[in-house]
Amino acid sequence: MNRYLLHGKLRAQEGKGHELSQILLRAADMLQSANGCQLYAVSVEEGVPDDIWITEIWDTKEDHDNSLKSVEIKNLISTAIPLLAGNPEGGLALHVIGGLGVQ
Amino acid sequence: MNRYLLHGKLRAQEGKGHELSQILLRAADMLQSANGCQLYAVSVEEGVPDDIWITEIWDTKEDHDNSLKSVEIKNLISTAIPLLAGNPEGGLALHVIGGLGVQ
Repeated sequence: MNRYLLHGKLRAQEGKGHELSQILLRAADMLQSANGCQLYAVSVEEGVPDDIWITEIWDTKEDHDNSLKSVEIKNLISTAIPLLAGNPEGGLALHVIGGLGVQ
Repeated sequence: MNRYLLHGKLRAQEGKGHELSQILLRAADMLQSANGCQLYAVSVEEGVPDDIWITEIWDTKEDHDNSLKSVEIKNLISTAIPLLAGNPEGGLALHVIGGLGVQ
């Protein structure tokens, strides 16, 4: 059964990238207790500080979707929305066939 | 010190996606002994079987670059080249700020 990988970016308003990344790092902390979350990495590209990339790996898509129902996560997302420069583009969803560092 | 994340795809010739993915899974096995490799995930997108995605996280870019110098990896890559539908596009390189599942 393939794991679920989601890779995408959130564009912050100019100068708000760092603040957005800190919110997403708090989301990563909250997901420690989420079922099936193997990876929630928060990243930036050199020279593009207001684009914050999130790379996730979950045991299943269902585990990922369930995590978004948590009140804590919903509240945190609501604090991030005002920082965004536009609607999130949604990420690239993939099936993980296997590899190193994937359970 | 930020970890190094690389996310990109290799396009196989039509019908060769599975064969390419198996070579990349062997690369992942070889990287067990590579210095600083935290993640080497091999994935596919629903309905696009000949695009094989690789998502890597390394302690440093240098560790990543060093791994490509290994004779074993070089030989493996040479077996993958004939399966490709074109030149690799190179991936998106990111600095990992932090998150769950990242050391």
